Amino acid sequence: MITALCGGVGGAKLVLGLYRTLPPHELSVIVNTADDLDYLGLHVSPDLDTVTYTLAGMSPIKQGWGIEGDTYQALENLRRYGAPTWFQVGDRDFATHLFRTDQLRHGANLTETTKRIAESSQVRARILPMTNDGVSTRLQVGDEWVAFQDYFVQRRHRDAVSAIRYDGIEEASSTPEVLDALQNAEIIVLVNSNPALSIVPILSTPGINDLLIAVSAVRVAVSPIVGTDAVSGPAGRLMKLLGHESSAAGVAAAYAGCIDGIVIDEVDANQADEIEALGIAVHCTRTVMNTLEDRDRLATETVSFARSLR
Amino acid sequence: MITALCGGVGGAKLVLGLYRTLPPHELSVIVNTADDLDYLGLHVSPDLDTVTYTLAGMSPIKQGWGIEGDTYQALENLRRYGAPTWFQVGDRDFATHLFRTDQLRHGANLTETTKRIAESSQVRARILPMTNDGVSTRLQVGDEWVAFQDYFVQRRHRDAVSAIRYDGIEEASSTPEVLDALQNAEIIVLVNSNPALSIVPILSTPGINDLLIAVSAVRVAVSPIVGTDAVSGPAGRLMKLLGHESSAAGVAAAYAGCIDGIVIDEVDANQADEIEALGIAVHCTRTVMNTLEDRDRLATETVSFARSLR
Repeated sequence: MITALCGGVGGAKLVLGLYRTLPPHELSVIVNTADDLDYLGLHVSPDLDTVTYTLAGMSPIKQGWGIEGDTYQALENLRRYGAPTWFQVGDRDFATHLFRTDQLRHGANLTETTKRIAESSQVRARILPMTNDGVSTRLQVGDEWVAFQDYFVQRRHRDAVSAIRYDGIEEASSTPEVLDALQNAEIIVLVNSNPALSIVPILSTPGINDLLIAVSAVRVAVSPIVGTDAVSGPAGRLMKLLGHESSAAGVAAAYAGCIDGIVIDEVDANQADEIEALGIAVHCTRTVMNTLEDRDRLATETVSFARSLR
Repeated sequence: MITALCGGVGGAKLVLGLYRTLPPHELSVIVNTADDLDYLGLHVSPDLDTVTYTLAGMSPIKQGWGIEGDTYQALENLRRYGAPTWFQVGDRDFATHLFRTDQLRHGANLTETTKRIAESSQVRARILPMTNDGVSTRLQVGDEWVAFQDYFVQRRHRDAVSAIRYDGIEEASSTPEVLDALQNAEIIVLVNSNPALSIVPILSTPGINDLLIAVSAVRVAVSPIVGTDAVSGPAGRLMKLLGHESSAAGVAAAYAGCIDGIVIDEVDANQADEIEALGIAVHCTRTVMNTLEDRDRLATETVSFARSLR
């Protein structure tokens, strides 16, 4: 059993590689839900959906989110009514949010609802929200605390961010399914998602960080930082919020205590000594994933590297 | 000012004729909301939407409901998730329900929300829900009381119905906008909607029946019954629930006290004496509306007939 901790688009690429190269039912994915939002009264879970759509083969490979061939008739009509439409939801995607919201209203929790959606989509991996409780990432921009989607989608993550917090995280509970997936894993992979926005919220869910320190599995991360910045998105700029520099070594330091090894890009090979001094083993390889083959190869190398650390 | 009382598809045809042949801002339409339903947590108002889409020129003329060229991507995906999909909602139509539900949740009432939707759709008539409160038509089928949509859509109105009730009608309030539209009307038209399912719920809203009896306007109905049955739908079969026969004379009797005149089909000319004996004037003409010209002609004749009764 291999368990991945994952956020949205970037991390889902590696998770797809794991899913394609492992027996699919041996993979569990614990997914960040701190980006979840209410859009027109619908419970939207962007990272859960990205992982599900990606593993189901429904997402366009290049774009990495949404549903291939989706249309935007509902959104166009909502725009006509003057509803906020900065958050792009396709017609098929709306069905997911409608179904999820309806299930939650009828008493199902987010884990059960996610399972139904994944099963309906023929995904055989276990996709697990980090918690069934509401957690909301907020970022300090100037004097204001803005919601994640406002920062990321509406303002296109251009603002300087001075602090981050995960509202509700202290009251949130980790789920039996998440604890099981961590306790019974042979390997735990912190994939190359944004540390501050995707992985740290998962690690901050009460019980998870402690369990990750104590667990018997081999724990490896894959650095999202190549050189001094992320391949895409604001992961690099947000590293300073975690008290670390924007580098592979910075990522290793942010996860120190929770990982036995880290996969870094070959361009960062010169940081290997610095990372190994933290007691973390290093594997250098090409980490940028353009093709499906890139995803498969990085997944295979990551698992082999983890097995070598037993 | 002309005010029409209306239900869904059948009645909307005549309302379209009124809208096309009158100065549009002189028309108010009071619409039945006792068919409203909760579908996946969305507030769906089928009759309000049918009237709005029809007057906006968005509905296919032949079908008489929904939005021309609408697609069913969301519904298809909902079916994949195992959600109930017997209620046909197109992608553009979903936007209407999402917008309405979101507006209601943020404190707008149904009248305000309907106005925003109509204005966004460039409809210049006033479309008014009969009440802002929840009313639900239920029909007794055997030992069971079934909701309107279950009877009408899911069971395709094939069951024998022994009784009808409008849950919540006694607690419902008529709105200032509806009272204004009745008090200031020159002519009030009870259009050829299903009496039991569409017109009587409006008349049963507290205050409306009394006002309709006392009002200064000329009040005319258009019979939905031609011969012994409705042109379409179960209006004929449901007349017995109102204690009247399925005929133009039965419709006149059901509305007695609320109308000064009635437009009946030329095939029912032999019932004129019986109706006039109730103190109700009669105008005979072709009432079946196939073409747009049929709608315009019947609307024009109905208004002329009403004016002749001053």
